[in-house]
Amino acid sequence: MSDARTAITPTRAENYAEWYQQVVRAADLAETSPVRGCMVIKPWGWGIWENIQRGLDGMFKATGHKNAYFPLFIPLSFLEKEAKHVEGFAKECAVVTHHRLEAGPGGKLVPAGELEEPLVVRPTSETIIGATFAKWVQSHRDLPLLINQWANVVRWEMRTRLFLRTTEFLWQEGHTAHATAEEAREETMRMLGVYAEFAEHWLAMPVVRGEKTAGERFPGAVETWCIEAMMQDRKALQAGTSHFLGQNFAKAQEIQFQDDAGRREFCWTTSWGVSTRLIGGAIMTHADDDGMVCPPMVAPAHVVVQPVLHKPETAAEVRGFCDKLVADLRRRHYGGRAVEVELDARDIRGGDKTWQWVKRGIPVRVEVGPRDVASGSVFVGRRDKGVKEKQSIPVGAFVEGIESMLAEIQQGLLDRARAFRREHVRVIDSKDDFYDFFRAPGGAGDDAAPTPIHGGFALAHFGGDPALEERIKSDLAVTVRCIPLDGQGLCADEGTPGTCPFTGRSSPRRVVWAKSY
Amino acid sequence: MSDARTAITPTRAENYAEWYQQVVRAADLAETSPVRGCMVIKPWGWGIWENIQRGLDGMFKATGHKNAYFPLFIPLSFLEKEAKHVEGFAKECAVVTHHRLEAGPGGKLVPAGELEEPLVVRPTSETIIGATFAKWVQSHRDLPLLINQWANVVRWEMRTRLFLRTTEFLWQEGHTAHATAEEAREETMRMLGVYAEFAEHWLAMPVVRGEKTAGERFPGAVETWCIEAMMQDRKALQAGTSHFLGQNFAKAQEIQFQDDAGRREFCWTTSWGVSTRLIGGAIMTHADDDGMVCPPMVAPAHVVVQPVLHKPETAAEVRGFCDKLVADLRRRHYGGRAVEVELDARDIRGGDKTWQWVKRGIPVRVEVGPRDVASGSVFVGRRDKGVKEKQSIPVGAFVEGIESMLAEIQQGLLDRARAFRREHVRVIDSKDDFYDFFRAPGGAGDDAAPTPIHGGFALAHFGGDPALEERIKSDLAVTVRCIPLDGQGLCADEGTPGTCPFTGRSSPRRVVWAKSY
Repeated sequence: MSDARTAITPTRAENYAEWYQQVVRAADLAETSPVRGCMVIKPWGWGIWENIQRGLDGMFKATGHKNAYFPLFIPLSFLEKEAKHVEGFAKECAVVTHHRLEAGPGGKLVPAGELEEPLVVRPTSETIIGATFAKWVQSHRDLPLLINQWANVVRWEMRTRLFLRTTEFLWQEGHTAHATAEEAREETMRMLGVYAEFAEHWLAMPVVRGEKTAGERFPGAVETWCIEAMMQDRKALQAGTSHFLGQNFAKAQEIQFQDDAGRREFCWTTSWGVSTRLIGGAIMTHADDDGMVCPPMVAPAHVVVQPVLHKPETAAEVRGFCDKLVADLRRRHYGGRAVEVELDARDIRGGDKTWQWVKRGIPVRVEVGPRDVASGSVFVGRRDKGVKEKQSIPVGAFVEGIESMLAEIQQGLLDRARAFRREHVRVIDSKDDFYDFFRAPGGAGDDAAPTPIHGGFALAHFGGDPALEERIKSDLAVTVRCIPLDGQGLCADEGTPGTCPFTGRSSPRRVVWAKSY
Repeated sequence: MSDARTAITPTRAENYAEWYQQVVRAADLAETSPVRGCMVIKPWGWGIWENIQRGLDGMFKATGHKNAYFPLFIPLSFLEKEAKHVEGFAKECAVVTHHRLEAGPGGKLVPAGELEEPLVVRPTSETIIGATFAKWVQSHRDLPLLINQWANVVRWEMRTRLFLRTTEFLWQEGHTAHATAEEAREETMRMLGVYAEFAEHWLAMPVVRGEKTAGERFPGAVETWCIEAMMQDRKALQAGTSHFLGQNFAKAQEIQFQDDAGRREFCWTTSWGVSTRLIGGAIMTHADDDGMVCPPMVAPAHVVVQPVLHKPETAAEVRGFCDKLVADLRRRHYGGRAVEVELDARDIRGGDKTWQWVKRGIPVRVEVGPRDVASGSVFVGRRDKGVKEKQSIPVGAFVEGIESMLAEIQQGLLDRARAFRREHVRVIDSKDDFYDFFRAPGGAGDDAAPTPIHGGFALAHFGGDPALEERIKSDLAVTVRCIPLDGQGLCADEGTPGTCPFTGRSSPRRVVWAKSY
């Protein structure tokens, strides 16, 4: 960017948290609603979510899953059947206690028709889906049962942030039942792989795959696996989780099957989910001080065409040229859909229009004025380059090349994000280095204040001591994000045993420590 | 059907209401859940809903609408702003009053953290979306604002029936704001037209378009328009509504804009919705005594291929033939998507397998045994014909012709439904004829009991007297379903004035009277 002025104030360096809110707002992605903690997802933000759904849904179906839909409400008694599960969610449940309104004292409406048993608005659906699975599964022939649901869920949150943590959010939750522990484990890892692939190839967001430590496990799970992405403030974002639930929920909900030999056995189950949080992840991976940068695979639209119409004598000709351009572009395909084009012929200043699309992060902007029409070319700006860095391209070549241009932008975003992460992953072998790495240069330590961006992912050995995790969390607000799987190329000695620099305990492998959302 | 045995017991003629429940169950469409009034939509039923969503969403986008998402919860105070609206919904609201659970007396979990203001789970979203529109609309340049949301809604129902009336249901709700009453009225009618077109061309369900009388209006609307379909028990199903809201909600929510002259004006708004009820409509339009019949446009899958594998020496060859057949079919397209094929190689009796697919209503069934492979043909059954009426077709011709076969089935279902409706629309000009038409031959009059199917749509003149509507409702459980638009070919003298046979009042046109869901 040659222009010193940025479209977003403050910049990332000035105040990262506030920058994030301003990008969400300037890009028309979402806004807060009059309902505490709930967001309104605006059309541009929803467009990203639609593409996320389309991409994931295709991958779920390709791996044999079917969609279904289960009730929004969960009877309190269901939640109570799995002790750790209810303990994990009790503090954040929206509870329906009445089923009508009536005029109370003074004519004000008040809740009436008290329910015999309160209903919880689903914070997740293991219990209600488990109860249904118990009916669906009779014999080993009914297994594996591979179900996914797209739904809204509610977890009452005290401090919310658009997309990252909201009281209501949208997600998908996969729930599967299997005859053996091995198959359920395979499913858990398969879906972790699907999430990682989606994050990298659709969101252009590199992720580390790994297992959570006991303290960070999903309530009721035997193992929780996750994908963790590095945001531009170098904090980790847990972007998706896949849980091996063992027989815990099968026992709580009595999901049983008859095996070959006629014995009744409990199933082994899994669950896995990603949410609208992914949009927050895409923002914090790609957006810059001029606003959102949409990866083309999930961009609500790929190209905006802006006719320059202020001269009445050429307006019709320019308009005609643009209409044809739009039609030609829409016949091309990228990422499994037709190229999506916005024609922006609004009668406002060209500069304002351009900046609006820059802030929204549309991958490609095309301006067409009378001179472009005369020369049969278009004036093209790319969101992955500087706003003023535009190029004149013959219209035929531009249309022909749109798919490869979008593919190049997509790949460039992933490469850039990978390079950023590489730069901020640090192999650490001493306590002092660890504390230095995570301590703000200014030393404030208050996460909410706009301290300088610092730290990153520390790869350090860890002997598995929960007390140590607690201490580091309280000292630095840093936690073990995951125990990474081998083969991800995070460092030279990945998967090699060593010694915990804090306790001297032996450690099977380095783990990823980071601050997190 | 030459076979006297039917797959569904009871038959439509024996007990229509019970037949419906059995079809929903036998076709694996949905089931009741442990949560009173809420349903579980099973994968096959969800597949129909996915296609309904795909079809409508395309039509909404083609008419300039954008999707967005608004909160699940509505503050009680919002609902109260439009007096008629809250009055209409107060009796069926699920109310959230607490935001956590804690251990109560005896250790049982009880609701805690009482909310200052109760939240209603949205029964519809005019108020919360209106509050957001008030922020989005400033100037006439922001209009029209054309928004749609796909969401779940909750209306507490005492008597529920799967798909037709459930406490939680899924729907889309369109909400638009306009500068003039005329534009808002045009939008209301445009979306009514979209619904009618979708019902006829996707669901193969003919509908009557018309306006509701005052008593059946949406709470808070100025005009409510609807599409009404005739089910096989000759009752009407309200399948979609489009409301002209005037300035009622704009005034309640302060949705204002500045016009050209700088004056602040209230917007004119509309809302319109269809729901999972459409699936119930498709069932009751097409299903027969052997189960569901899916219109190909919304069928979760178009073709099932059943290899006959019991002879080990030919199994591999049959399997190979089928794999190629499946791959070839999947390369064909119908109704805007690839032909969807299920390969059913389960090791169960062929007859059981066939009947399962018949009950689910898959449009085309293909059996392939060793002799078919030898002759290069397939054995094809169509759901719109008798179960035993199968035909051997050379495999190449079958694959080549799959699109036209599906189109023929789709058209045939619509033609049949149209013929059925024509047969049961009656032009009536006397009170006695009217009462005879709607009185059960047995005379029971209790809607819940399995009385013989009778009646239909009566086209009678109506002077607009609400007291008459009340009387006929109480006598016969018959209501004015709509005041039909002209040009629908319902009867020879449509749109011609006449005299109400009950009151002698003058009537501008015949209206549609019927029993209804």
